[in-house]
Amino acid sequence: MSDTHNDVSDWWATSIIDMAPGRIRFRGHPVEQLVGTVSFAQMIWLLTRGDLPTEAEAALLECALVAAVDHGPQAPSIAAARMAVTCGLGLNGAIASAVNMLDDIHGGAGEQAVELYGWIDGAATSGAALEDAASAMIDKWRAGRGAFIPGFGHRFHKPEDPRAPRLLQLVDEAAAAGTVSGRFAAIGRAVQQILNERKGGPVPMNIDGATAVIYAELGFAGPLARGLFCLSRSVGIIAHAWEQMNQGGRNKGPTPPAYRWTYTGPDPIGNSR
Amino acid sequence: MSDTHNDVSDWWATSIIDMAPGRIRFRGHPVEQLVGTVSFAQMIWLLTRGDLPTEAEAALLECALVAAVDHGPQAPSIAAARMAVTCGLGLNGAIASAVNMLDDIHGGAGEQAVELYGWIDGAATSGAALEDAASAMIDKWRAGRGAFIPGFGHRFHKPEDPRAPRLLQLVDEAAAAGTVSGRFAAIGRAVQQILNERKGGPVPMNIDGATAVIYAELGFAGPLARGLFCLSRSVGIIAHAWEQMNQGGRNKGPTPPAYRWTYTGPDPIGNSR
Amino acid sequence: MSDTHNDVSDWWATSIIDMAPGRIRFRGHPVEQLVGTVSFAQMIWLLTRGDLPTEAEAALLECALVAAVDHGPQAPSIAAARMAVTCGLGLNGAIASAVNMLDDIHGGAGEQAVELYGWIDGAATSGAALEDAASAMIDKWRAGRGAFIPGFGHRFHKPEDPRAPRLLQLVDEAAAAGTVSGRFAAIGRAVQQILNERKGGPVPMNIDGATAVIYAELGFAGPLARGLFCLSRSVGIIAHAWEQMNQGGRNKGPTPPAYRWTYTGPDPIGNSR
Amino acid sequence: MSDTHNDVSDWWATSIIDMAPGRIRFRGHPVEQLVGTVSFAQMIWLLTRGDLPTEAEAALLECALVAAVDHGPQAPSIAAARMAVTCGLGLNGAIASAVNMLDDIHGGAGEQAVELYGWIDGAATSGAALEDAASAMIDKWRAGRGAFIPGFGHRFHKPEDPRAPRLLQLVDEAAAAGTVSGRFAAIGRAVQQILNERKGGPVPMNIDGATAVIYAELGFAGPLARGLFCLSRSVGIIAHAWEQMNQGGRNKGPTPPAYRWTYTGPDPIGNSR
Repeated sequence: MSDTHNDVSDWWATSIIDMAPGRIRFRGHPVEQLVGTVSFAQMIWLLTRGDLPTEAEAALLECALVAAVDHGPQAPSIAAARMAVTCGLGLNGAIASAVNMLDDIHGGAGEQAVELYGWIDGAATSGAALEDAASAMIDKWRAGRGAFIPGFGHRFHKPEDPRAPRLLQLVDEAAAAGTVSGRFAAIGRAVQQILNERKGGPVPMNIDGATAVIYAELGFAGPLARGLFCLSRSVGIIAHAWEQMNQGGRNKGPTPPAYRWTYTGPDPIGNSR
Repeated sequence: MSDTHNDVSDWWATSIIDMAPGRIRFRGHPVEQLVGTVSFAQMIWLLTRGDLPTEAEAALLECALVAAVDHGPQAPSIAAARMAVTCGLGLNGAIASAVNMLDDIHGGAGEQAVELYGWIDGAATSGAALEDAASAMIDKWRAGRGAFIPGFGHRFHKPEDPRAPRLLQLVDEAAAAGTVSGRFAAIGRAVQQILNERKGGPVPMNIDGATAVIYAELGFAGPLARGLFCLSRSVGIIAHAWEQMNQGGRNKGPTPPAYRWTYTGPDPIGNSR
Repeated sequence: MSDTHNDVSDWWATSIIDMAPGRIRFRGHPVEQLVGTVSFAQMIWLLTRGDLPTEAEAALLECALVAAVDHGPQAPSIAAARMAVTCGLGLNGAIASAVNMLDDIHGGAGEQAVELYGWIDGAATSGAALEDAASAMIDKWRAGRGAFIPGFGHRFHKPEDPRAPRLLQLVDEAAAAGTVSGRFAAIGRAVQQILNERKGGPVPMNIDGATAVIYAELGFAGPLARGLFCLSRSVGIIAHAWEQMNQGGRNKGPTPPAYRWTYTGPDPIGNSR
Repeated sequence: MSDTHNDVSDWWATSIIDMAPGRIRFRGHPVEQLVGTVSFAQMIWLLTRGDLPTEAEAALLECALVAAVDHGPQAPSIAAARMAVTCGLGLNGAIASAVNMLDDIHGGAGEQAVELYGWIDGAATSGAALEDAASAMIDKWRAGRGAFIPGFGHRFHKPEDPRAPRLLQLVDEAAAAGTVSGRFAAIGRAVQQILNERKGGPVPMNIDGATAVIYAELGFAGPLARGLFCLSRSVGIIAHAWEQMNQGGRNKGPTPPAYRWTYTGPDPIGNSR
């Protein structure tokens, strides 16, 4: 709102949206000029970054958003969403309980991979050979952040996560067309090669590692990579919650009711009969 | 997963996703064939409904998704997202706390409007004139569901919400092209006309009423209308949370700290000095 | 804050807490006089209702809070909490995702039972015999709110939920001591008798039905009954989340990974080999 | 459940609760023996730790739980809870959105203070004088974890947080009675003295620093200190959400609607008139 300037209004200052009665502008663009003109992916870019991307940039962003929508009911977030609607929650509540779980371990790898790629890019820009930079930064990550290299390895998709090569192919095409530089695709591949060599076997780049290449190529900051992953995965969350609503059920537990749980504490009921 | 069929696997049965090591299919489509081929809007449709929309249908869906991304920091969900990141939450947590608030009053009007439009459509299909059907169903809504007619009226955007006429224009174009029938645009306009007449002044169709026209035209069920509104508004939530991260702050309250709150209970500190 | 009165401070007016630098009062009581003097249950009562309960009233409230702390990992909220911490969330995030699920079906029965008991109490106060009042209000509930009578029946604890008779016994003792009237215990028993007769078998009063007797006896409004159930169940949520933190695990799914899910959609991977 | 042992039941193994039809045991204790016998604070201890505390231990725990229930609507979590119910959420949803915000900055200081106290205790146990140990560990914290020393300093309660001296007094009494050792009270006071000296002015121990003394004295792990803070603050969240329900309002924003926000981006509407 551009009319009232004082300490109360300033407390909520934003450059994202301006309004007057009957008028709305996003990042300076009247809403009625955006609707019907820009794609949802372009709008996501505009709102989070402030400028409109080219169609080619938006198309590459769209690839990352499309690829990450779902990973099935074994993912804790998806299971939570399905259970949530059987407790009485609407889709807003199901999304809330589920997206919340996309934290450091479940949904943070993309953000972390963007950060790792950035380290490597910084080292390479400072003159190191790419493979040396990648190797050094992998060591640095493990020393300071833990054994898991974000974006690589998958307990299920072996030897290859089917999303990664397709996404890298699209980055290559975008680099060939001049849309992006291709530097982060090279960085991602360097990381993969080093991890493969060190392990003596495939450590496949996963969806987080591959989408992080795209986010880094397009200049998204790490936290936004996590945010956009949440947005993408929300699609799967909505689809599963809606499917569960149609399947019905009340207070759906994690396993069929007959299984329940193994009790490991003192004085089990079974012993006292 | 198509390999193991038993009561435990069946407990989480889904038609949305199938996986095998190295392979992922959404609604039967290999992921690598979707990525780079379908838009994010098409993917949203595919995952939530099971079939791929035409490009024209996806384009109309995209209009609804683009139009609803944000309504500024006065919206409780946006304020919550901005406060959340100053408490230490990442974007996943900020989305969770914020989207949760898109409940019946804040984010449910789209779902409700789809339901109301469906009532009117049913009555009109049964032979009533459209205006009579709309008038009767408005009465029925108020008798059973309360005074607020979902999707109409806005405390700020008067006499017109700038998003509604633009969205209706795009529905008209889609109807002219044969993409949709246009019945729900007529229904929405009939509701507006009746509300205007009854009030003797403008009761503008708002973003919920206008996007509900699109969702109803495209055949989305009411709960999905709410879910897709949450998805769209998540974009604004992410943008505002990220902007706040960059502005900084710790434990941001709702007003500048000097204002605090008016105490209305017994034994105020001020009186006892 | 009692010092500043204006529209901004008034927007957040409350009678719950007053503060000045170095001073905090809850409902008019200086915090330093409450700490070490009142029990947690008394503080819960004071903050939610404004007055301090007698020790006997607080003791009965405490029974309801103690009884409802947990129902094991088959409860969707508990499962969600355990999964949440394996995704990287702290206990605050685990509580959030889990308590959110205590909605109408999973955690709302206590609130609904308080409401139903209130209907019966109103009818009986107007002159109907208690059993007639209960029977009529059960019919009214089923006509307007659905087949489930809140607070009665349990899919697991048959023929009796062990918490209900113990809680009713404690209400009887409190009624004998003059702490409460005992009317709602009679109402709860009347509902149970009618449901048993209608079914021709036991429809045991469950934890929600029994705690609702206590909340109604003590004069808590229905929504607070839900809120206090959430508070009580948060204890189990915290215990399970913490146990899971110590067990470890990353991205814990709902079933052991080998089970995954049954795919029911088109073009399963298994068929296309 | 003690009857079924297999990989599915084992996946949800727990030592917290055992059940059979008509029977529930918490940590080996039949529920009907706990209800009416143990206090809510004892139950919290039992469920989170596995053993029953003495009454004196439970009384000290209760002091920490009572002291932290609320800090008013300027706290982002409380503001969020109040806004949430005006969006249509029940108390479960309001708690979810609000407790989620009790993250590292807003609700994590207690956990962090327990950790810091533990460092100091470890150093002192290894032979350093308490003040030297405290000074060294404060330096270590600032080097590795940032400038803020958790549990000390308050932007509003100056020169003293009224809760801290009262809580320390109660710890002293408990130490005199032999309930706790008093070591962590000494540690907390040492930290305060050092911070005061370094700043040349009061850096008051706040609610987090004081309750952390209690949690550490009683042997609670750091993450549980955060969890119990969330439990305590949930009381204020419930009270404020319920008060707001009674005040009414729809889609309550952070400031009175007339203030809105200051727009800081390109092409403000005000400039283009």
